[in-house]
Amino acid sequence: MYLTQALHRWAATTPDRPATSYGGRSRTYAEVRDRVARSAAGLRATGVAAGDRVGILALNSDRYVEAIHAVPWADAVLNPVNIRWSPAEIAYSLADSGTRTLIVDDLFAPAVPAIQALYPDLTTVIHAGDGPTPEFAVAYEALIADTDPIDDARRSGDQLAGIFYTGGTTGSPKGVMLSHANLISAALAGLASRSFFGHGQTPRSLHVAPMFHLADFGFLLMTTIAGGTNVAFPGFDPAKVLATIDEQQITDTLLVPTMIQMLVSSPAIQDAQLDSLRTVVYGGSPISPALLDRARTRLPGVDFVQAYGMTELAALATILPAAAHDDPAHRESAGRAGPVTELRIVDPSGRRQPAGTVGEILVRGPQVMQGYWEQPEQTAATLQDGWLHTGDAGYLDADGYLHIVDRIKDMIITGGENVYSSEVENALARHPAVAAVAVIGLPDERWGERVHAVVVPAPNTEVDIDALLTHTRELIAGYKVPRSVSCTDALPISGAGKVLKRALREAQLETIAE
Amino acid sequence: MYLTQALHRWAATTPDRPATSYGGRSRTYAEVRDRVARSAAGLRATGVAAGDRVGILALNSDRYVEAIHAVPWADAVLNPVNIRWSPAEIAYSLADSGTRTLIVDDLFAPAVPAIQALYPDLTTVIHAGDGPTPEFAVAYEALIADTDPIDDARRSGDQLAGIFYTGGTTGSPKGVMLSHANLISAALAGLASRSFFGHGQTPRSLHVAPMFHLADFGFLLMTTIAGGTNVAFPGFDPAKVLATIDEQQITDTLLVPTMIQMLVSSPAIQDAQLDSLRTVVYGGSPISPALLDRARTRLPGVDFVQAYGMTELAALATILPAAAHDDPAHRESAGRAGPVTELRIVDPSGRRQPAGTVGEILVRGPQVMQGYWEQPEQTAATLQDGWLHTGDAGYLDADGYLHIVDRIKDMIITGGENVYSSEVENALARHPAVAAVAVIGLPDERWGERVHAVVVPAPNTEVDIDALLTHTRELIAGYKVPRSVSCTDALPISGAGKVLKRALREAQLETIAE
Repeated sequence: MYLTQALHRWAATTPDRPATSYGGRSRTYAEVRDRVARSAAGLRATGVAAGDRVGILALNSDRYVEAIHAVPWADAVLNPVNIRWSPAEIAYSLADSGTRTLIVDDLFAPAVPAIQALYPDLTTVIHAGDGPTPEFAVAYEALIADTDPIDDARRSGDQLAGIFYTGGTTGSPKGVMLSHANLISAALAGLASRSFFGHGQTPRSLHVAPMFHLADFGFLLMTTIAGGTNVAFPGFDPAKVLATIDEQQITDTLLVPTMIQMLVSSPAIQDAQLDSLRTVVYGGSPISPALLDRARTRLPGVDFVQAYGMTELAALATILPAAAHDDPAHRESAGRAGPVTELRIVDPSGRRQPAGTVGEILVRGPQVMQGYWEQPEQTAATLQDGWLHTGDAGYLDADGYLHIVDRIKDMIITGGENVYSSEVENALARHPAVAAVAVIGLPDERWGERVHAVVVPAPNTEVDIDALLTHTRELIAGYKVPRSVSCTDALPISGAGKVLKRALREAQLETIAE
Repeated sequence: MYLTQALHRWAATTPDRPATSYGGRSRTYAEVRDRVARSAAGLRATGVAAGDRVGILALNSDRYVEAIHAVPWADAVLNPVNIRWSPAEIAYSLADSGTRTLIVDDLFAPAVPAIQALYPDLTTVIHAGDGPTPEFAVAYEALIADTDPIDDARRSGDQLAGIFYTGGTTGSPKGVMLSHANLISAALAGLASRSFFGHGQTPRSLHVAPMFHLADFGFLLMTTIAGGTNVAFPGFDPAKVLATIDEQQITDTLLVPTMIQMLVSSPAIQDAQLDSLRTVVYGGSPISPALLDRARTRLPGVDFVQAYGMTELAALATILPAAAHDDPAHRESAGRAGPVTELRIVDPSGRRQPAGTVGEILVRGPQVMQGYWEQPEQTAATLQDGWLHTGDAGYLDADGYLHIVDRIKDMIITGGENVYSSEVENALARHPAVAAVAVIGLPDERWGERVHAVVVPAPNTEVDIDALLTHTRELIAGYKVPRSVSCTDALPISGAGKVLKRALREAQLETIAE
């Protein structure tokens, strides 16, 4: 199993089918294979050797899709860089992984000097853009034009395919090592589940979630294995995304809940032509039932499919198929284990928990990472006997559906009681005055920690805090109801679309100190 | 990836769903997991050590499904034995693979003394049947009753899962070594193709093709990964198979062409209730277009899906989906490469051939065997640079569909021209007087080889050989038309449902000599 195999297969089978589409530019499978074979040659020519890491710091584009294939083709290892990071964070991850070659686009080229100032070992920069190539960089298109194609090195199986840095919502980013077998088996399992591209058409997949993140990366691999077209969209603009769905006759897309909310709240959705759209895959962070209801009402012909996973799982563990969304017992779950995946819920001593009892979620399967790059202790703590310790808390119901309660580390302990912040967030989010909400624990003399909510009010709405807490008290136990509430314009979000609770907590503590 | 993983997953998720059904006896996933964990313990107790080979010589049954899981669970290696073999052939394969433990059913228990006489190292015989256990054997049910379950050894990935002897239509049987990753990736690819169980229901799969053969073995793994029920049927009786489809509400079955012919020719098909049946997967040998037409007419609501592969490919290379059967350009092909599979056509010097040109079919992918057991030279000749040399001749059309022309070794060279016997067979089979036909090459002084046809006449029909040859001459070139024709009641068929051309050739040569 190897990442470039689908490219070989479809270039041989359907050479004229479009493989990529970006900003009105479309390239066939045969063209992409040829360009990948040449850009791999170019990488070798610039000094990339077997096993070297090559970073990609770019918005979604057709060249991003090519780079994902060209790096392993050149016998190198991918390092897709989080585009939301600061130069200091980027320099940290490049240094940590020993990445000395970086592919950048027009947007990120200007950030290179700042990164190089912090990490001088970044010696080779390749500019894969449409604008002028900066002096310090090699032009990607020149590499393709000037080199002869080389044979695919065909890294495969347990060989390292990429180092994918986790979002870093807590602690330093860790480099998740994923092999070719990890990535392809996760993608195959997704396809074997029939929840992805279940409509049976050759997919035209819209990539609006960033490709560096494994949720979209996996969606890209699935599309390619299915011989579909990867339509790349740089950034996220609701009106433009809606227009693109019609223009590009998109069948499938993957969205994080924040994007779904922006789409269904966009005035442009009223007149949007979305007849081609068959499936919206969502994941990356929990979705509120209210938002899911709104989205399904707004997009009545569209199947919603939930995927739960994480970088360490390449990124698929469970799937909630479209049909299960009509089943009240399961629609708020994260679904069941995907094919060739096992789940287990354990207590802190590692004892398996019965159905209905909350504990840490463990996952085993061929998609489980090889480990954290140069972090043997973290690896040993996370990977035990083949089981990945997700750090998420949840329970399995009697039908094997996984209900995710919270990140273990986002659990608040108040007066000796465990409070899972997502449960409180879901209760608060049902109030019409709330557009978004995050619940955190703050130090409290009496209770150890107290439950605190940070609320983003709905547009043109004032939040009546007493009314909000009364509403919440009707839904959840008293000890879970926030003891304090603050309002803000926007929540800090990580590159992966997750709320940065650590940042939120620090900001609240500063406010208290002032 | 490992063979027993789906059993773990479904026993945890849907413990009460039926996993196996046989002769009115049905067991749930939880029951089968428990029995497998106990029978694995029993295998260890009888002396099976890590890496030991365990043979299975039995008709299809629920216990066969259990044994397939129990052997790797006990850290051992499967050796499913061809049930059509003579004691001498069985003894050869057990000796060749060093298999000292054999699981037999009621039918095959009486053959054990003859096998042991030829191969005294067969020290442990386990009787998995419903009748009395012979003195020389251990009772399978007693092993399950008397032992405590053990943990799954969880052989996985590149570890050896089984040695599967090839049918031996030519030369000595060779032991094909397949790893867990080989078997599971082939099954996942089949599922990812959506051609199997494409109806979206949880499959109830009827196993009438023998489970020792990898076509059905793979179908069994796919069913288990999909959480379906494996309904085992011992042997093949058209009327009983048709009745079972209704009684067991079968959704899917895998048949070799001979079985399809027997089913559609059975008088019982007139009154059979086949509403539950969604898909018939066929493969194992070429099907004549005429038979396929008849079958589709007789079973109008059923999807026909073709799979082409071989033991060395665990057993999947290409798939012709149901929809392609309505496409005149492709319906007589073997379909396109399955997911994560590559095809290549080469000439004898290894040069890649363009679309439309016949050559040897090469296959690459994660399902390609590890090699032949203790046959380094055969392995080196067959596996080159990751490519499996299939020994089959064929071509790819412009759309990437594989057209299989013949076994390379069944090719007849007459007057310097290559004649592919299957092409001649297809032409002959279109004549209404022909029920079945095999074409072979016989030594000829003038032409080197001459094309000879062995015909099985249709019931109550006399074959007018002149008329038959006139008919054939209208369809194919003159040099391909048989120079001689003989008639017979039945063709010699291998355990895998393939015509034994070597036996046919020898019989013809004897006739000539007489």
